[in-house]
Amino acid sequence: MGSLSTNTFSSLDSDGFTNDSKMVIDFIAEYYKNIENYPVQSQVKPGYLLTKLPDTAPYCPESLEDVLKDVTDSIIPGLTHWQSPNFFAYFQIKCKHCRVCCYRARIHCNGLDGKDAQAPHLLFLFSGNGGGVLHGSTCEAIVCTLVAARDRTLRNIGAENIAKLVVYASDQTHSALFKGVKLVGIPSSNFRCLSTSFSSEFSLSPQSLEDAIENDIKAGYVPLFLCATVGTTACGAVDPVMDLGKIARKYNLWFHIDAAYAGSACICPEFRHYLDGIELADSLSMNPHKWLLTNMDCCCLWVQQPRLLIESLSSNPEFLKNNASESNAVVDYKDWQIALSRRFRALKLWVVIRRHGIDNLMFHIRSHVNLAKRFESLVAKDSRFEVVVPRRFSLVCFRLKHNDACKASELNRKLLAAVNESGRAFMTHSVVGGLFIIRCAVGSTLIEERHVDDLWKLIQEKAADLDEETGAIGE
Amino acid sequence: MGSLSTNTFSSLDSDGFTNDSKMVIDFIAEYYKNIENYPVQSQVKPGYLLTKLPDTAPYCPESLEDVLKDVTDSIIPGLTHWQSPNFFAYFQIKCKHCRVCCYRARIHCNGLDGKDAQAPHLLFLFSGNGGGVLHGSTCEAIVCTLVAARDRTLRNIGAENIAKLVVYASDQTHSALFKGVKLVGIPSSNFRCLSTSFSSEFSLSPQSLEDAIENDIKAGYVPLFLCATVGTTACGAVDPVMDLGKIARKYNLWFHIDAAYAGSACICPEFRHYLDGIELADSLSMNPHKWLLTNMDCCCLWVQQPRLLIESLSSNPEFLKNNASESNAVVDYKDWQIALSRRFRALKLWVVIRRHGIDNLMFHIRSHVNLAKRFESLVAKDSRFEVVVPRRFSLVCFRLKHNDACKASELNRKLLAAVNESGRAFMTHSVVGGLFIIRCAVGSTLIEERHVDDLWKLIQEKAADLDEETGAIGE
Repeated sequence: MGSLSTNTFSSLDSDGFTNDSKMVIDFIAEYYKNIENYPVQSQVKPGYLLTKLPDTAPYCPESLEDVLKDVTDSIIPGLTHWQSPNFFAYFQIKCKHCRVCCYRARIHCNGLDGKDAQAPHLLFLFSGNGGGVLHGSTCEAIVCTLVAARDRTLRNIGAENIAKLVVYASDQTHSALFKGVKLVGIPSSNFRCLSTSFSSEFSLSPQSLEDAIENDIKAGYVPLFLCATVGTTACGAVDPVMDLGKIARKYNLWFHIDAAYAGSACICPEFRHYLDGIELADSLSMNPHKWLLTNMDCCCLWVQQPRLLIESLSSNPEFLKNNASESNAVVDYKDWQIALSRRFRALKLWVVIRRHGIDNLMFHIRSHVNLAKRFESLVAKDSRFEVVVPRRFSLVCFRLKHNDACKASELNRKLLAAVNESGRAFMTHSVVGGLFIIRCAVGSTLIEERHVDDLWKLIQEKAADLDEETGAIGE
Repeated sequence: MGSLSTNTFSSLDSDGFTNDSKMVIDFIAEYYKNIENYPVQSQVKPGYLLTKLPDTAPYCPESLEDVLKDVTDSIIPGLTHWQSPNFFAYFQIKCKHCRVCCYRARIHCNGLDGKDAQAPHLLFLFSGNGGGVLHGSTCEAIVCTLVAARDRTLRNIGAENIAKLVVYASDQTHSALFKGVKLVGIPSSNFRCLSTSFSSEFSLSPQSLEDAIENDIKAGYVPLFLCATVGTTACGAVDPVMDLGKIARKYNLWFHIDAAYAGSACICPEFRHYLDGIELADSLSMNPHKWLLTNMDCCCLWVQQPRLLIESLSSNPEFLKNNASESNAVVDYKDWQIALSRRFRALKLWVVIRRHGIDNLMFHIRSHVNLAKRFESLVAKDSRFEVVVPRRFSLVCFRLKHNDACKASELNRKLLAAVNESGRAFMTHSVVGGLFIIRCAVGSTLIEERHVDDLWKLIQEKAADLDEETGAIGE
């Protein structure tokens, strides 16, 4: 399925974007001209694609021609042609500008499936047992896992005990979890938002988790769900997956790992240790649309026991019944997610992996990490500033120092506002351990060293203005 | 904002698709070349766009040049440029092939907002009070309204009473509702799936609804939510919105209207009566990706009281705090939906409306309805067949007649399989009132009369084969 190209990779520049895009447009137009020649409903056997795919993701980039040839030879035969004028089924769904639309997952754009147990790199997410599905967002993925966990437990203790269920995470956990808890009907007062601190670099303490669980059990609650984060939004903290996973197993909690941002980094061997203990997880999510060159939206969710998702989310109305589903020959991903219909997200992720190759995807991650290190060293050289939390990935958290905590927050707030109001750069803030910090998140596909250097100059310039105005810097 | 063009509309043919698409690719490449010239964070004032927009959607199509000029002049100044190399905020979200990405709804692609109270056509959905938001799917929209309704009631009766809440709909209602009920933690046994029949053309009987509500109240349950459907999936049935709405008001139920498919038809005056009583609704959803030329995914949700959504779905972590949100100067659509991040769906819907104009969108709907009528009359002329349920929109439900109900189902099942296995067309089935029926749903943008005629010939051909094989047709 396409030979590996040895071309040197360079991230798509403007011409590359234009050329690739127009080639795809022509491809789609051609597909469209021929659409009446295809059987309207796919005639392939379930699983047909498995034999056509390589065992591993490509290390080197492949040409777009090769990728499109595989779409023609291998993907299109597996599609039901929803845009065909001879399509009179269901209600039609429009897909005007990308006429390749997959409603039910008859095709698997592998290696995004369980088969790739040996693929050492990108596909660690979906290797081993369990199964993977592409969602639109972490919140959606978390809602589905919460519902699966909730129902598994309520089947044992009775639906009337929903208000006894307890969910655990650190105070650094993304707000998606809290929102998910509310959505699935668990009282928000049953969300245990466990404190973290500078001393643990804002990672969740296994001891505080176990204490909280024990307290809840004594009080008659039922511990349900634990979310650990690899790369928190506020400061890039990493929870200790292995230690937390053991506690989750001990108390029979559903253990979810949210690696929305930093999961992408784990395609590089040097970052993979952050996932040690992953085998203890019931589910894991990461977002290629954050740091893996994939367009919004694309969230990979892996679950250890897909049947638990299916038991909570399946629905089988008459109008969807078909032989392939009823014989369990295909995976009905509608039962792994909230919505019935699905966009064909696997296609874009598959093209990203093939067009760039694992080698260049790793290069992409490492170049961002190196730029973050560069910024970090610039901050470290200026005695007015400090890096507040150790940098692990491509996020640097820093601030102007000041002896007075309140004044420090005020100064940094003003500095950030001045930088952003200039229009020359945009950063955001967070508050960790009571400190207002500025976040410099390296993530643009267009970024070069000069942008980092310019950012630092801009910050210094605004800090000088601020010092002139307040005389307060360096106190 | 762009002058109305008087060009004659024709739906995009292959060349039109190619030309328009390549113009957009060039536009994006140009944006990308200039990206460093824009202030990274949008510097416009909230609401700036309201003064730049016409009061009504265009009746005639506009040129793509005009639309893109407005994107340059009016939309881009309102964007925070997430793809800029000077973007160091949050974690970056990739949007490689459409670099216009809107994370938080600082811009409103109106007229998709409350302002358009006078727009008589497409924008009826979002006129008057209340507010609109674009979701990805009906199920997502329903989950959000169910959660808002659930929490409104639980605030009065206590969270521990979640298992008393009851949801009502007809047995023709889309499975999305049942799935939504389970997702939000209401026991599935509290879903009242009320029977419909041929005598009411499969619409929900107000009397049976009221009886069910009264029974539940007597049994100690708390009636919560009613979903009416305008254009059911199985057979295009329409629930009596006005009568059901009055009952919902009487018993203080949240009243949702699911117009996923047929809502698009209501841009034509002759179909709008199906929504009479809409003023009684708490929420309404419809999917332009089904029948309004908009790419998957796009579901319009209107709610009478947005604050109820916000009370259930809001989350305000520190890393998202900003002056505009805190002063309530902008609408934070993250609090109207499940996910935090949002794709810029408004842009595609806005382009569809402007590029086609209301006149041609109505033409599009009517041409499909006329093709369905054509098919219906072909069926009616053949005494072996019958139209099973009155056609209201572009869906024709028909079957081979047979005196024996079991044999009839078997014959129609075989007929449908034969048609689909030919690869020349694809239809699906449903079961209503115990009868297996074949659904012919006209919906393709490419469809012409010949496709309908060919479909009918194909059906007749397969029916003849079946008669030869079984000798059972016409018994």
